[in-house]
Amino acid sequence: MPELEWFDGGITAVPGILAGGVTAGIKPSGKKDLALVYSSSPARAAAVFTSNQVKGAPVLVSMQHVRGGVAQAIVASSGCANVCTGEQGMRDAREMTRLVSEALRIRAEHVLIASTGVIGERLPMDKIRAAIPTLVKSLSPQGGRTANEAIMTTDTRLKEVAARLEIGGRPVTIGGMAKGAAMIEPHLATMLCFVATDAAITREALDASTRRAVDASFNRITIDSDQSTSDTVFVLANGLSENDPLGPGARGLTQFSRALAAVMQRLARLMVQDGEGATKLVAISVRGAASRRDALAAARSIANSPLVKTAINGEDPNWGRLMMAIGKSPARVDAGRVAIAFEGELMVEGGTVKDGVRVDRIREIMRRSEYTITVDLGLGRAEDTVWTCDLSEEYVRLNSKYTT
Amino acid sequence: MPELEWFDGGITAVPGILAGGVTAGIKPSGKKDLALVYSSSPARAAAVFTSNQVKGAPVLVSMQHVRGGVAQAIVASSGCANVCTGEQGMRDAREMTRLVSEALRIRAEHVLIASTGVIGERLPMDKIRAAIPTLVKSLSPQGGRTANEAIMTTDTRLKEVAARLEIGGRPVTIGGMAKGAAMIEPHLATMLCFVATDAAITREALDASTRRAVDASFNRITIDSDQSTSDTVFVLANGLSENDPLGPGARGLTQFSRALAAVMQRLARLMVQDGEGATKLVAISVRGAASRRDALAAARSIANSPLVKTAINGEDPNWGRLMMAIGKSPARVDAGRVAIAFEGELMVEGGTVKDGVRVDRIREIMRRSEYTITVDLGLGRAEDTVWTCDLSEEYVRLNSKYTT
Repeated sequence: MPELEWFDGGITAVPGILAGGVTAGIKPSGKKDLALVYSSSPARAAAVFTSNQVKGAPVLVSMQHVRGGVAQAIVASSGCANVCTGEQGMRDAREMTRLVSEALRIRAEHVLIASTGVIGERLPMDKIRAAIPTLVKSLSPQGGRTANEAIMTTDTRLKEVAARLEIGGRPVTIGGMAKGAAMIEPHLATMLCFVATDAAITREALDASTRRAVDASFNRITIDSDQSTSDTVFVLANGLSENDPLGPGARGLTQFSRALAAVMQRLARLMVQDGEGATKLVAISVRGAASRRDALAAARSIANSPLVKTAINGEDPNWGRLMMAIGKSPARVDAGRVAIAFEGELMVEGGTVKDGVRVDRIREIMRRSEYTITVDLGLGRAEDTVWTCDLSEEYVRLNSKYTT
Repeated sequence: MPELEWFDGGITAVPGILAGGVTAGIKPSGKKDLALVYSSSPARAAAVFTSNQVKGAPVLVSMQHVRGGVAQAIVASSGCANVCTGEQGMRDAREMTRLVSEALRIRAEHVLIASTGVIGERLPMDKIRAAIPTLVKSLSPQGGRTANEAIMTTDTRLKEVAARLEIGGRPVTIGGMAKGAAMIEPHLATMLCFVATDAAITREALDASTRRAVDASFNRITIDSDQSTSDTVFVLANGLSENDPLGPGARGLTQFSRALAAVMQRLARLMVQDGEGATKLVAISVRGAASRRDALAAARSIANSPLVKTAINGEDPNWGRLMMAIGKSPARVDAGRVAIAFEGELMVEGGTVKDGVRVDRIREIMRRSEYTITVDLGLGRAEDTVWTCDLSEEYVRLNSKYTT
């Protein structure tokens, strides 16, 4: 068995995890808009939330509920984010968790909640109250896809992954689902990601693994540099694999952490690929930086530059814009040392265009739907990578008329 | 006479200032691409350049030349920025200043230089050499417009202003010209701005006034959050007004400084109005901040948010995106205290939508080509304003195919 075996499936690929989704009527389109993930036994829970100072009511409620480190269900709605809705919004979010907990006969604090959609509108609680019995009935061991559908907003594709690994001779499964197509920048975005695993793991180790995995995945992508008020990552670990519990320093913990990060990276890339109006997934890899922080700063500056993103959209090898974006970043830069390559094909060296540069070859690379731009700052040994997409007319079209 | 009297005209409205422009053949379009501004006597000179770490050769040469505090000519080319062109680019920029100085019989260090256009290509020096005699002949006291035309790239409109004030009983004129339509963010952008005045002023006072004026104007606008490698502001003061020289603490210096800032603010707004694909000029005014720095940070976060800018484009009163942009900024924010108004029409109070909000009235305001969004953070007394434009499909169209 390879270290990590990917297979078709999502969150319900994990033993003991059921999921489902229904149309409550939050979305005017009549598409599914209420999702539920349920663990047959209480699971260790870890979470990471948006760092935006304006946080949605569901985020605030989940922050309280996850404090105990245990959860058994996640209820999520799409079409309305329940953000900037004042005290009533908090009451609505709490009521949703209470209704789910009563229907499932579990404790309300064991229900986590997330909502995504328009900011500033109240949830239609009458519709949600009416839908919760059907939602609970929709739970099934094959329900991962349905739940994923029910959290989509402008997403055009499902985003689910599943992987198996072996820890101390026991098979461990990790499955995840996510949504997100805009308001996405480093440090989380209008993105929801729910991951479950049957690994047995201590709370401390699960928290640390989750933070590291988010940092290596969702904190390394950008669609439009905007940051949602609702970003949420939940990880549930129900221990059904019966491996020796993974605590700090345990054999197998590194392996588990890496697998969790790999799962989130796949979901994160799916998000960028499905970025609003996006046609390209481009890895911006900065190396030769004076520090890791510099490498990340330079990569983010490139990945968020509208002029770089429009050039990627136009398949235009406009390396001057890359130099501009590097130079405006807070990273230490010596223009005369910068080298830039597209999939290994060198375009810039010593800060200027390479003699005999094969522009046709680079144009050919830029026509691909996925490629890597490597920037060598020539100053040190640190490196980091950020994934971005192009900025298209379609992005503007989609976003100039979202609420209307 | 009012404190500051605006009148039609530009840089050559200033006594002793001549300007001209010609087609050297740098732009394939055959449009004018070489400009010259000349002061009949050596003038005090101040300058502010891009803070991008990757600086064009013309910026580096001008930084050396302005060190002496005196200049008599500005030569500027458009169509090619002469950036990331290595040692040869430096030689080309120096040669341009030398050729101009020889033709004008002035010292080479008294010639300042700026170039704007594509990054990474060399200037066609043979064409420039051939054009300089004609360029010098084109100088005229009515040549401000022609010079302005010759520095345009994607600009669609001339950007020139002229104003008169009285200092110690003497009339003083300030005239300016500018270009810039993209790669524009706080801290300068692909923008050139040349201002002349006949005020007599000490070097120290001119430097300080210039820095303050740039900070209150070009450092308070954004088109696309990108930052050019060529941004340059030059101010020439030839003293022909024969006012008592304005030194630190002199009567009239505050008045002059304010006038200089007002001139640059007009030019800066013209730039945002002419932003690539822009259809709206919107002032983002943040008040009630805990500090000036916070006010500016919140204003910039809003002004640069792609989701806010697309909503402005769509005339969509999507106040949730404003809350999102405020919350992601480094400014101290308490969501429950935020109030937001469009031209004084209150939309949000206490962090949520106002009871009885007049959405139709706000939609009507958003249909205007110019308006102000006021955000009150409710935390203190500090305020600041940033001018921005919308993000349109046209911006993406223009920038996805710039070099090709």
